[in-house]
Amino acid sequence: MLRALSALIACCVILPAWSDEGMWTFQQPPLAAIKAKYGVELTPEWLDRVRTATVRLSNCTASIVSPDGLILTNHHCAEGCLAEHSSKTESLLERGFAAADRAHELRCGTQVADVLMQMEEVTAKVGAATRGLDDKAANEARKKKLTELEQACEDASRAAGAPLKCESVDLYEGGQYYLYKYKRYDDVRLVFAPEEDIAAFGGDPDNFQFPRWDLDFSLLRAYEDGKPAHTPNRLRINFSGPDAGQLVFVSGHPGTTDRQLTIAQLETQRDIDLPEVLLRAAELRGRYIQFGKSGPEAERIVQEPLNSLENGIKVRRKLLDALHDDQQLARKRREEGQLRARVAADAKLAKSIGDPWQRIEAAQRIDRAISLPYQFLESGAGFNSRLFRYARELVRAAAERPKANAERLREYTDAALPRLEQQLSAPVPVYPELEALTLSFGLERMREWLGPDDLVVRRLLSEESPDQLAARLIANTKLADPAVRMRLWHADSQTLIAAHDPMLELALRVDPDARAVRRRYEDEVEAPVQAASEKIARARFAVLGTSVYPDANFTLRLNYGTVQGWDEDGVAVPPFTHLERLFERATGSEPFLVPERWLAVRSQLDPDIKFNLSTTNDIVGGNSGSPVIDAHGEIVGLAFDGNIHSIAGTYWFDPKDNRAVAVHPAIILEALSKVYGAKSILEELRAN
Amino acid sequence: MLRALSALIACCVILPAWSDEGMWTFQQPPLAAIKAKYGVELTPEWLDRVRTATVRLSNCTASIVSPDGLILTNHHCAEGCLAEHSSKTESLLERGFAAADRAHELRCGTQVADVLMQMEEVTAKVGAATRGLDDKAANEARKKKLTELEQACEDASRAAGAPLKCESVDLYEGGQYYLYKYKRYDDVRLVFAPEEDIAAFGGDPDNFQFPRWDLDFSLLRAYEDGKPAHTPNRLRINFSGPDAGQLVFVSGHPGTTDRQLTIAQLETQRDIDLPEVLLRAAELRGRYIQFGKSGPEAERIVQEPLNSLENGIKVRRKLLDALHDDQQLARKRREEGQLRARVAADAKLAKSIGDPWQRIEAAQRIDRAISLPYQFLESGAGFNSRLFRYARELVRAAAERPKANAERLREYTDAALPRLEQQLSAPVPVYPELEALTLSFGLERMREWLGPDDLVVRRLLSEESPDQLAARLIANTKLADPAVRMRLWHADSQTLIAAHDPMLELALRVDPDARAVRRRYEDEVEAPVQAASEKIARARFAVLGTSVYPDANFTLRLNYGTVQGWDEDGVAVPPFTHLERLFERATGSEPFLVPERWLAVRSQLDPDIKFNLSTTNDIVGGNSGSPVIDAHGEIVGLAFDGNIHSIAGTYWFDPKDNRAVAVHPAIILEALSKVYGAKSILEELRAN
Repeated sequence: MLRALSALIACCVILPAWSDEGMWTFQQPPLAAIKAKYGVELTPEWLDRVRTATVRLSNCTASIVSPDGLILTNHHCAEGCLAEHSSKTESLLERGFAAADRAHELRCGTQVADVLMQMEEVTAKVGAATRGLDDKAANEARKKKLTELEQACEDASRAAGAPLKCESVDLYEGGQYYLYKYKRYDDVRLVFAPEEDIAAFGGDPDNFQFPRWDLDFSLLRAYEDGKPAHTPNRLRINFSGPDAGQLVFVSGHPGTTDRQLTIAQLETQRDIDLPEVLLRAAELRGRYIQFGKSGPEAERIVQEPLNSLENGIKVRRKLLDALHDDQQLARKRREEGQLRARVAADAKLAKSIGDPWQRIEAAQRIDRAISLPYQFLESGAGFNSRLFRYARELVRAAAERPKANAERLREYTDAALPRLEQQLSAPVPVYPELEALTLSFGLERMREWLGPDDLVVRRLLSEESPDQLAARLIANTKLADPAVRMRLWHADSQTLIAAHDPMLELALRVDPDARAVRRRYEDEVEAPVQAASEKIARARFAVLGTSVYPDANFTLRLNYGTVQGWDEDGVAVPPFTHLERLFERATGSEPFLVPERWLAVRSQLDPDIKFNLSTTNDIVGGNSGSPVIDAHGEIVGLAFDGNIHSIAGTYWFDPKDNRAVAVHPAIILEALSKVYGAKSILEELRAN
Repeated sequence: MLRALSALIACCVILPAWSDEGMWTFQQPPLAAIKAKYGVELTPEWLDRVRTATVRLSNCTASIVSPDGLILTNHHCAEGCLAEHSSKTESLLERGFAAADRAHELRCGTQVADVLMQMEEVTAKVGAATRGLDDKAANEARKKKLTELEQACEDASRAAGAPLKCESVDLYEGGQYYLYKYKRYDDVRLVFAPEEDIAAFGGDPDNFQFPRWDLDFSLLRAYEDGKPAHTPNRLRINFSGPDAGQLVFVSGHPGTTDRQLTIAQLETQRDIDLPEVLLRAAELRGRYIQFGKSGPEAERIVQEPLNSLENGIKVRRKLLDALHDDQQLARKRREEGQLRARVAADAKLAKSIGDPWQRIEAAQRIDRAISLPYQFLESGAGFNSRLFRYARELVRAAAERPKANAERLREYTDAALPRLEQQLSAPVPVYPELEALTLSFGLERMREWLGPDDLVVRRLLSEESPDQLAARLIANTKLADPAVRMRLWHADSQTLIAAHDPMLELALRVDPDARAVRRRYEDEVEAPVQAASEKIARARFAVLGTSVYPDANFTLRLNYGTVQGWDEDGVAVPPFTHLERLFERATGSEPFLVPERWLAVRSQLDPDIKFNLSTTNDIVGGNSGSPVIDAHGEIVGLAFDGNIHSIAGTYWFDPKDNRAVAVHPAIILEALSKVYGAKSILEELRAN
């Protein structure tokens, strides 16, 4: 599934003329190219309407589909919410959910829904703040300036009576800076979700495959002041869907692409980052699966984290395969060489640009050297536990809040704190068994990879084993209780120390080491890479002009393509699947299990109805839940995945076989009407 | 630990003048170099004595240390035997073992002890059999000839009244062929083993680390006709051990080195083989660990497979790191380029050699394409179960036995069958829970990696989940009983079919597919690679002469080095560790737990006694248990590991920091006398 992976570094790209490649910003859409190729002219009104009906969820995309705040997204985008409302004995993932009426819609405690209202360019302001500074100082100054801009923007919008969330956006890796201003709904509720067995039929084996039969949709609703939000600007669903070959658009938030990383950066991913993460993830998968076999309750509570983990493994496995594609890498190497040659051949450019590629390469050596402590101490690999994350957030918030806003770690600025507070206060179930599993796992691997004689390892594990330490912390911490967390949320560091909560104590104890390695990373890797990347972006603008798109970074993008299959080793894969094959493919056990409710009405369903479809749109993780839109601005599909070749899209778009995968609206209609009898939802979706 | 990994492909290497690199055969030892550098002259008598006192175990090396067949090896080399004699409620790994007297020594059901008696070169005979044939035909003809030679050799030795095991050996990747003739002891018994907590103190985190404190030794005994074997030719132990800087030799069976693989072959390992195996192994590790947490019985039965698995993960992880060392790879690339240039510059040589590098590269493309089905169907990744292995062996033996000896799969020739029979008949405990875990895991990953629509996957899993299938097979097969296996051992295929044993049925069902992919591998990968490698070996002989050593292939080798530490990032690592630090490093829980028996006598032990040591000898997995010998031919150490840098020794020997790690004999003496009170063993070891 197109889940967003943790962000890396983003930049810009050259658009080959022969493809529908590109993740375009709404301020710079490729109108001429679309018109030239497809004869379709997108109007400013079309663009505004699509933009303001597209929703950014915390990890996905969605769209507004009724005037009463109804939101269409994927089932897997609502999985977190389903899990929040599940328990050991009752799982909404298993049985699905349909609110009897609006009063019974379930609040998703950690979810938000953002709509992008305005984009303001601030490149000049950021440039002025960093001019003439060395890399490290510029990196600091840039962050301060972005914090100040965000704060001023939010203050101004509040003063004007229409509060907006203001987030700075770095496009083209420092080539452009923007403030993106969102209307945020922080009360999002669950309206409808089918059973996971049909939403993710085929499970992990079928993930990123096509043909496919997944009803990967769910419905949420945005609330404002405790009432359904008023959202007159919504997208209508055209339940008959698109034709083969038809032009379609995807509006959404692709999470991360790395199409403009330098070869040195790609090699770090290939040789260090991906193998390390994959090895840990694979082992954790084994632990999760074996844990799940210990009983139905365990199976239930491990389902959601396991799904997410397995998705990440499949993505990273194919990313690694992509980076081992020597031909593609040779092509990237050639392109990099050409750009470097163009810069070198232009004396003025060469003087202003220098050799940023070499500087990035030098920074990669440091990156590799500190990768393990960074991962284990700062990035969550060692302290792999929700309770620890709560503890760290409390500890760091207490340490950062007394500082001036612009001096803080960026995730603790005034603009960021409300979201943190929402997450800390959400009554998310915490399962001690799972906490013990993941925390002990993290500690054990930290001891293995940093070595038993590492100073932090010695300090933590010289008298307790990873199991013992994890068990003691989890048994004695009070942080599983949201009320306790909220009592400590505004506490200062002394109060946290005095609380004698063992998880807080751990977070306090390792914080100096974690901050030290983060400091080193920011000063010696991030700072020079950012400075060098800005220069490469400038070189690119100078040589190629600005008719290119920036790398994805979970901000709103538009792209276009057509409904198409592809050729797989000489076999044509058609662009549509149909219901009948779902039943044929079922084995009677998960993940190839068709829910009882479907089997019961099988004879009433149209076997030829379209189920999933594939398109040439250029999307990646984060685009999950994106509306697939026709030229009239109607929804004709719901993006939820890509085919296996699409994963390499992180690094390059291959129009030959990179395909987006979407739910066909016809199967949504068939399911809502004949399987789930969801009459009121259908009425709402169809109302004019 | 230096456990042998599954063999890959072996070849030959250039010896740099500045190091003590090399794994030399006993027929071609570097006598002149040793004499020149150290002034020590090894006599033919010294070599014969060391060779015939060195023992090859099924997976390790050992040495004969008393005239009554007493054999010194590592604890981890006896782990299989300890596990065979353990149960869910009682583990010999946990508590160690000391036979009260000879009558109580425990037979290791699957172990053998081989002593290399003679080496006969047969290069010309093999060359004559393959001359003028194309790659595929030559590959077949070569195997047939080797089978014939082995058979004739064994027949002749039997006729002469002194039966020998005759095994063909390929040195220098087809540059030389030998028949190695072993005296085989197939009755090997366990005499003594310490607790695993002290034998492998530090466990997986400390594995391949130094400084180290591991009492990784055990004692076995070879029996003949039910009585301790008469072995007058043994090595004496010098319990005072070696001095720092002293010249020492290691005689043993390094398992696999790949120092002469081509770049294309190394890239296949780096891009395909290692990542795939590591991912599977990491997940299985997670399953094992989580399984072990389900209770003390589970923890006990999973210990031995988990140790072996974790060792393999650490080795492969560092192998992958090594192949990502771009400087080393660039050096290999240069060396390959130089050899290719030398060949190209010599018209006659060029004509006879052609471009074998290119042929290997072409074969690698096929190797990569069929790697997954080969791994899952033929190589054990999919049917990961001891019971399935029994089933496959029965099924294949029944299919192969009716064929002429030279026409069979090589592992079912008359020379090979007795060893198979020994393994099948051994009363090894089979734990259904573990079988279910590994078999279900294999099936699940087979479905993931080959895809749910793969024909074999569809055939096996269209109506049962991996869990269900594994559970049914394991619950209903009778193959856990050695008597049942022995009843079926001489059965023909019809009888096996008629047995209606579900595991046999599975083996029968997948055999055509497994054989087909193996056939393809042998014809399209193995055959051209072998033919091309022979040419590269000839090029190498032509250009570099024969003063080089062949890659390791678990045949007997000798090497030399000195007792030395190394410099780790500017910090000197001294070559000896001492007992005191063991106690300081203990945490009170595994794997840093000092056994009670040691704590009880701590005050009586000499804190300054030497524990482990490091040397510059060039060893790899398979050398575990090798005697470290001084110039007088006395044992001054027991090799059991290398430092972390030694793992890259598979590909290249770096004298700067590649170190072998051994148990110091003084700690063995201290342990036997003061901790274990093993008086009779000490007497036997010290008798003249």
